[in-house]
Amino acid sequence: MPQMPKIIDQTCLRAFLNSFDNVLTDCDGVLWSGDNIIGRANDAVNKLRSLGKKIFYVTNNSTKSRDEYVKKCEKLGFIASKEEIVSSSFVMAQYLKQQGFNKKVYVVGTSGMTAELDNVGIAHTDIGPEPLTVSPFKLPETMELDPEVGAVAVGFDADFSFPKLMRAASHLEDQECLFIATNTDERFPITDSKLVFPGTGSFVRCVETVAERPPLIMGKPSEKMFTVISEKYQLKPSRTLMIGDRCNTDILFGKNCGLHTLVVLTGVTKKEDLEMWSKSSDEEKHRLLADYCLPQLGDLVDLLKTLE
Amino acid sequence: MPQMPKIIDQTCLRAFLNSFDNVLTDCDGVLWSGDNIIGRANDAVNKLRSLGKKIFYVTNNSTKSRDEYVKKCEKLGFIASKEEIVSSSFVMAQYLKQQGFNKKVYVVGTSGMTAELDNVGIAHTDIGPEPLTVSPFKLPETMELDPEVGAVAVGFDADFSFPKLMRAASHLEDQECLFIATNTDERFPITDSKLVFPGTGSFVRCVETVAERPPLIMGKPSEKMFTVISEKYQLKPSRTLMIGDRCNTDILFGKNCGLHTLVVLTGVTKKEDLEMWSKSSDEEKHRLLADYCLPQLGDLVDLLKTLE
Repeated sequence: MPQMPKIIDQTCLRAFLNSFDNVLTDCDGVLWSGDNIIGRANDAVNKLRSLGKKIFYVTNNSTKSRDEYVKKCEKLGFIASKEEIVSSSFVMAQYLKQQGFNKKVYVVGTSGMTAELDNVGIAHTDIGPEPLTVSPFKLPETMELDPEVGAVAVGFDADFSFPKLMRAASHLEDQECLFIATNTDERFPITDSKLVFPGTGSFVRCVETVAERPPLIMGKPSEKMFTVISEKYQLKPSRTLMIGDRCNTDILFGKNCGLHTLVVLTGVTKKEDLEMWSKSSDEEKHRLLADYCLPQLGDLVDLLKTLE
Repeated sequence: MPQMPKIIDQTCLRAFLNSFDNVLTDCDGVLWSGDNIIGRANDAVNKLRSLGKKIFYVTNNSTKSRDEYVKKCEKLGFIASKEEIVSSSFVMAQYLKQQGFNKKVYVVGTSGMTAELDNVGIAHTDIGPEPLTVSPFKLPETMELDPEVGAVAVGFDADFSFPKLMRAASHLEDQECLFIATNTDERFPITDSKLVFPGTGSFVRCVETVAERPPLIMGKPSEKMFTVISEKYQLKPSRTLMIGDRCNTDILFGKNCGLHTLVVLTGVTKKEDLEMWSKSSDEEKHRLLADYCLPQLGDLVDLLKTLE
């Protein structure tokens, strides 16, 4: 039977701390939930920084630009600079730049995506609503496609509509047109509500179904997010820790990149999930088991005090 | 190597005709394309009827009621009665009735679905647009779920929106809530356009992704469509022919139900597809190969004249 993640306590604290120089941490569900900080996550991250660890904020959320993330971090008491933010929108823009992409991107998403494209000088279509104003069966007669479009990028877009779906799928009918998804998260973690908040993955699957081909995925668990920063900052996987709350993205990302992994139980993954996966005969489930576990990231604060 | 579908010609016409008493025919892509009849499909179907064959029009399209289908058939010169129309919306209503369903259906769809629910006296929510009027992140505070809803039914809905998706997924969070899809067709067949017309399958995959559970599928290739009519009219599978243009729905449906199958090349499936599948080492692809093939259904008209 594969090992359950090791709960960090005083007996293993030093070994844990000595195992990494760099910290990649997911945001929603680890550091904050919506606009609320989770426990003392800010003190924990800032403390790791004061111990000399390099910090990176790694998020699949495509809705904010890196500048907006820095502001959010500061507001909630996390020290952060733009260079430390690795969002799926940023990775998308970096990827297109690396490819020498010189056409226009049809964006199904928000200003978080277009701001990053602007940053690297890549042209894109306007964002915002495109509501249905005629019978859908009249659309093929009236809709004009922008001939300059050479990529479709799908992120979170609450203005998602039938005309947008038709436009995205029609561009993708040209097999030369790139198909990029910021991430495939099924849901946003929200608490204190009976409602389910749909994630980017739902729009991606919708477009993918009509396009009849899969997208290139920028976000976790894809390794692209690590490649972008590891090349720039020479991060060694064996000296890097990934912290996350969603094992099928965060922890799997860590495993895919050869990182150490820490799961916290303040977001999507529950203790029961870990137990279920450790008992499963499916080896894919074992890959979801992190090396370490903490009920919440803020628990590190008191633990680290014992070293002083 | 599996056999390619046999092209119907004079040498096999009698054997073909003697092999069935009942005809199930798909509509869009076989009989008509949008509002245009395909070749002489009407004469072919009416001729089969005059030879004593029972005719059923079997369609995954959920947008029209059976009454509307009868009108469309008549307008395009196909003899038809309401009892001969088997649509995915009709099958959905029949299924819920058989289950003794006595709650309300949250409908992501059109009047084609609500008309069939009304027909069997099953309550449903209103259809039509539910646009986003506040920030999506405010929705969890303002959206109220109808407590009487006990099923979510997803069909074609060009008014599909983020609030509707959130509502559907949130109802489905109750594991007792039924999840029904009229069909999973990726696209509507349209011709003379560079645009791709998204099918119901795109909305279904979108909701399924957030709900994190699969729907019960009413349409082809699910056997439910045959069960509904075969029980009522005592149709023998071995004496029934399925005609279709889309092999992964129509022909697979025929195979799943043990029917004879005829593919026409006036819709989704092309001759090259058939050749590719016959050469494939994947046995699932072989199941897409129909028993018979015709370039278009109207070709039967001249063939049948040779018998007179």
